[in-house]
Amino acid sequence: MDHKRDEENGLGGNYNSEVETEHMKKKEKENQEEKEEEEEEMSVERIFEGKEVPSWREQLTVRAFVVSLVLSVLFTFIVMKLNLTTGIIPSLNVSAGLLGFFFVSVWTKFLDKSGLLNQPFTRQENTVIQTCVVASSGIAFSGGFGSYLFGMSQIIAKQSENAGGNKEYKNPTVAWMIGFLFVVSFLGLFSVVPLRKIMIVDFKLTYPSGTATAHLINSFHTPQGAKLAKKQVRVLGKYFSFSFLWGFFQWFFAAGDDCGFAGFPTFGLKAYKYKFFFDFSATYVGVGMICPYIVNISLLVGGILSWGLMWPLIETRKGDWYPADLPSSNIRGLQGYKIFIAIATILGDGLYNFFKVLSQTLLGLFYQLQYKNMSGVPPIEDRSSPRSSSTSYNDTRRTQFFLKDQIPTSFAIGGYIAIAAISMATLPHIFPQLKWYYILVIYLVAPTMAFCNAYGCGLTDWSLASTYGKLAIFSIGAWAGAAHGGVIAGLAACGVMMNIVSTASDLMQDFKTGYLTLASPRSMFVSQFIGTAMGCVISPCVFWLFYKAFPDLGQSGSEYPAPYALVYHNMAVLGVEGISNLPKNCFTLCCVFFGAAILVNLVRDTVGRKRAQFIPIPMAMAIPFYLGPYFAIDMCVGSLILFIWQRINKAKAEAFGPAVASGLICGEGIWTLPSSILALAGIKQPICMKFLSRATNARVDKFLGA
Amino acid sequence: MDHKRDEENGLGGNYNSEVETEHMKKKEKENQEEKEEEEEEMSVERIFEGKEVPSWREQLTVRAFVVSLVLSVLFTFIVMKLNLTTGIIPSLNVSAGLLGFFFVSVWTKFLDKSGLLNQPFTRQENTVIQTCVVASSGIAFSGGFGSYLFGMSQIIAKQSENAGGNKEYKNPTVAWMIGFLFVVSFLGLFSVVPLRKIMIVDFKLTYPSGTATAHLINSFHTPQGAKLAKKQVRVLGKYFSFSFLWGFFQWFFAAGDDCGFAGFPTFGLKAYKYKFFFDFSATYVGVGMICPYIVNISLLVGGILSWGLMWPLIETRKGDWYPADLPSSNIRGLQGYKIFIAIATILGDGLYNFFKVLSQTLLGLFYQLQYKNMSGVPPIEDRSSPRSSSTSYNDTRRTQFFLKDQIPTSFAIGGYIAIAAISMATLPHIFPQLKWYYILVIYLVAPTMAFCNAYGCGLTDWSLASTYGKLAIFSIGAWAGAAHGGVIAGLAACGVMMNIVSTASDLMQDFKTGYLTLASPRSMFVSQFIGTAMGCVISPCVFWLFYKAFPDLGQSGSEYPAPYALVYHNMAVLGVEGISNLPKNCFTLCCVFFGAAILVNLVRDTVGRKRAQFIPIPMAMAIPFYLGPYFAIDMCVGSLILFIWQRINKAKAEAFGPAVASGLICGEGIWTLPSSILALAGIKQPICMKFLSRATNARVDKFLGA
Repeated sequence: MDHKRDEENGLGGNYNSEVETEHMKKKEKENQEEKEEEEEEMSVERIFEGKEVPSWREQLTVRAFVVSLVLSVLFTFIVMKLNLTTGIIPSLNVSAGLLGFFFVSVWTKFLDKSGLLNQPFTRQENTVIQTCVVASSGIAFSGGFGSYLFGMSQIIAKQSENAGGNKEYKNPTVAWMIGFLFVVSFLGLFSVVPLRKIMIVDFKLTYPSGTATAHLINSFHTPQGAKLAKKQVRVLGKYFSFSFLWGFFQWFFAAGDDCGFAGFPTFGLKAYKYKFFFDFSATYVGVGMICPYIVNISLLVGGILSWGLMWPLIETRKGDWYPADLPSSNIRGLQGYKIFIAIATILGDGLYNFFKVLSQTLLGLFYQLQYKNMSGVPPIEDRSSPRSSSTSYNDTRRTQFFLKDQIPTSFAIGGYIAIAAISMATLPHIFPQLKWYYILVIYLVAPTMAFCNAYGCGLTDWSLASTYGKLAIFSIGAWAGAAHGGVIAGLAACGVMMNIVSTASDLMQDFKTGYLTLASPRSMFVSQFIGTAMGCVISPCVFWLFYKAFPDLGQSGSEYPAPYALVYHNMAVLGVEGISNLPKNCFTLCCVFFGAAILVNLVRDTVGRKRAQFIPIPMAMAIPFYLGPYFAIDMCVGSLILFIWQRINKAKAEAFGPAVASGLICGEGIWTLPSSILALAGIKQPICMKFLSRATNARVDKFLGA
Repeated sequence: MDHKRDEENGLGGNYNSEVETEHMKKKEKENQEEKEEEEEEMSVERIFEGKEVPSWREQLTVRAFVVSLVLSVLFTFIVMKLNLTTGIIPSLNVSAGLLGFFFVSVWTKFLDKSGLLNQPFTRQENTVIQTCVVASSGIAFSGGFGSYLFGMSQIIAKQSENAGGNKEYKNPTVAWMIGFLFVVSFLGLFSVVPLRKIMIVDFKLTYPSGTATAHLINSFHTPQGAKLAKKQVRVLGKYFSFSFLWGFFQWFFAAGDDCGFAGFPTFGLKAYKYKFFFDFSATYVGVGMICPYIVNISLLVGGILSWGLMWPLIETRKGDWYPADLPSSNIRGLQGYKIFIAIATILGDGLYNFFKVLSQTLLGLFYQLQYKNMSGVPPIEDRSSPRSSSTSYNDTRRTQFFLKDQIPTSFAIGGYIAIAAISMATLPHIFPQLKWYYILVIYLVAPTMAFCNAYGCGLTDWSLASTYGKLAIFSIGAWAGAAHGGVIAGLAACGVMMNIVSTASDLMQDFKTGYLTLASPRSMFVSQFIGTAMGCVISPCVFWLFYKAFPDLGQSGSEYPAPYALVYHNMAVLGVEGISNLPKNCFTLCCVFFGAAILVNLVRDTVGRKRAQFIPIPMAMAIPFYLGPYFAIDMCVGSLILFIWQRINKAKAEAFGPAVASGLICGEGIWTLPSSILALAGIKQPICMKFLSRATNARVDKFLGA
């Protein structure tokens, strides 16, 4: 688009008289000089200009991987524990970046003093560590030890709803788990590679966590003497501490469900019931400050449409559209509408964009073959960020480094096909219920899903890997059917799908970090590869440790109930009964939303860039369908803060906004580490801040008084 | 003290050589010019210099009293309703100032447009209205309609603990209530007059609420064109809105006892039990910003000494020092220690200062009679505020106006004696149990108590009128004895005492406001006089309305339970049994604290001004003995904010600190008005934000789930 606009400008210039052109040129030059001066003060890459960027091989050091290994083991323990207790896993990107910096900088300082340091610690190396740790500890989540994988075990199957039916199960052993992970985990890696440039350079997606981590890493490595940068670092540090301490403070009041600030009914209890509340999350306020306005507004509009309108309306049909006596979490009830309509919308948007990119790429290739002089960059519209229309020094330099060390697409596709073939051959040996043609279908569909998830995550910071996993449970489970081991087949399919989709979004976040820290994509790929390999060994071993150490693992009510394992198992049981089992009108609604998503995208593309700014993005709208609008409210608060700040002082807001946002995101991000350690140590939150209606409170007071 | 220091400097100068003196003078002059320039920017009175201050007669306008009457009725309704429902009465100073401004400015603008305005609306007139309304609506509180006065009625006596004993009661009627109020309410007014100069000019006490109101009134009337003042007004407005909205937000979550932010166990539930918590009160953070550091630290030290040390220690003697089976609010238990030790300490400090002032005044008079040329200002040390050592332009001008329209002390003393005589003659007719000699004793002691309360209130913003009232219940009740109608005598004595003491602190706050707005003390006295007269009629009538409209008034469990009426009645029942009835060692402890308060004051006065800064003030220490240290924590937070601000930017902190503090105090102050109206309209807070321990929460969840 930028390219296109420049051309138009050139044409327009021809009509002007020479004098006018001269005058304009002068003015333009002045403007440019001014702009450059301004930028010099702002641009991160100008500050780093003096620092040499090491080659991609130099970015991969032995010390980086030693530190990564140590951190991987640490984080895997933390994630595994959370998997098996609450099932809610925070993002550890930030912690990985920070701890990586801490370990290596202590190490290098020590070596520097003893005169043995042969290579300085660079921000690229820092990114490599962060990437490796994220890839490795990500497997502790996407490996499904708290969900699909453990959901196959006998202990879970025994507790299932399906009490009367046949009890299929597959108990975990280290051997098959490592094998399974090795054949499925690398696929995500290869599917991400070709998307990399599209998501980050062409679409200029924000990836808020990745951006925040990059800001943090950049701030650690800022050369001395840069005045603005120092100020930014100070601002980042201030908001980092605030956010960390705020997270710490909140912790004390969060004993139990719906307790604490995360369950604060800011707009009243009725609104809270429909998840309309501000949950005081510094992270999402920060994310909202990084995301473009239209994304935040789309989220809010989606939240209002679904939780404010559709779900309450569908609820009035209780007993007609779906059975009235189901628990709220049952997929045959309202929960089903939520999940499937969200998936349909996301798929609609994702597929539209996938095919748009595909057609434009093919068209570009076609043109390139016909007129060899044209640039191969397909003119993809940057639809998310209206701010990025001018290519700044930062962008130029980052794009240059990001595109320098290419990974050939043929290598990526070749790798994908090879691993797909291997896993098609081996997986049916591990799970006889999972036929090779199921796997083939998943592998054909998966890149699209990976695209959708990476794209959605880039817009909103939410990875919906588990939602895609659920889709696999239902489709493959229904296909296999109850008679042919559909439960195990569905759960295994879920694992295959989740690994690809989750890796796609995680690694794309890392690539964004790499883009912003000038890390070579090639060094990152290697680091992710090594990290994935580490994860495939570490995670099953750590799980095995828990499994052997706690015999009542997975028993509900025990210390490690692994709540999602049972949920996944039950979903698989439901899934085998097929699509006919969906609640009434759900499939129709899904089709409507699928179509609407495509339609909105078409409209966005035809009305032109300016007007498209005011049309919500379906992908972003769909995310709160399932999760609820609370985080959209947080993000809109972030937008509002930025908006007011820009009104008061635009220059300051633009210079310090990202630092404030990163500080907010990273502070709470790091707090997850000590909070996880507290959980591991068995130290529980002491107080519950509870919100009761006046009437309930009177009852509770009476109860407590008696 | 200032006077003294200047003399010393003069002496010191004589020893220097002439050249040095010349040099010093030049430097001094430069400094002075700089200082003056600086001051010109800061000084409020410089800004107002161009505005003529009307004479004291001109400050008293008819429109002011019309507005005062309307507001008095409004506020009396609000206070009465609160009296009869929760018994907790907020300070309405700020609302009175603001609404007074609003009404009169609308009125004058209207007249101005129609060309009929013959006198502009000045800040002095505004202060006159505020004073009148406070004097009038103050009687709705000090009249005891929710406490001692209604506590005499049959409906309360029936519910009393003293179920077996003789049932003395006196039911309210409009006639005797008006009579009673007229003979007791004016005494406070006359007792305040001679203290006025001592408290405000000599002691330079802060009176945080009065100061905040004055800032608000000044900001409304700031002449246009003053740059800094405009900025200050904007800052005040910003924090005012914040504080108001914060109060509004808090309201929603405060359904029930211990609910909401006011019961936030910031430091854990155990600390909360001993009232160590930050209650998120914008008012007290603001008050802390106005009060000198040493006051806030004294409060905190007192809080830690009492609630952190003494009460928990005494609690371990439960069953030995006091009966174990008493409810916590019973005065024969721990509550007794709290109240009586606090009173003893306050009396010790108050008496010390009272006699100090008395002796210095007498000494001054003596000197004045001997050497007629000396100034009559007694050299009283300003022990509260280390900042006020330089007499600025503001101080000079304000003191000048404050001392211009004197009210002769002889007039005040004459008035006091006359009214005392009248009430001694009339009160025994209303309450036969209250002998004339009881009243005489009260009137002899009362000025000291009034001094103590006005002094304590000036330091910390807390009026402890009800505490002094309780003292009267116990002393007079015990003196009269159960056989001679001690209950009614005690309650009536409480009324006499409370009226004097409460008026003393309220009106002194007003005088501070008047001092800061250049209102004439004479016009304020007249306004207070008229306000008091209004209150003596309005309050009983409004109470009568409630009494007749709601037949179950005072019945516990009804809509208007008047909780404190029963508490006061029970105290009176206990009181008649005399001092021997105090819990074990309580009297000894009281004596120790009484002595310690005097000792600390002696030490403070002997070590010199500089070191005295670091010695806590016993009066301030004693207040949290009874109330708990939570508000001291709020105030220390205010101190901390100011301290950090001064560290970062001293000039800015000093220019805008008072504006921020006033904004915080006034915003929540005004919120009390709509919140009271909501309460009157029967709209209750919808949500309770409750804090439960992890174990209790589990029990409650189980209970609610069942």
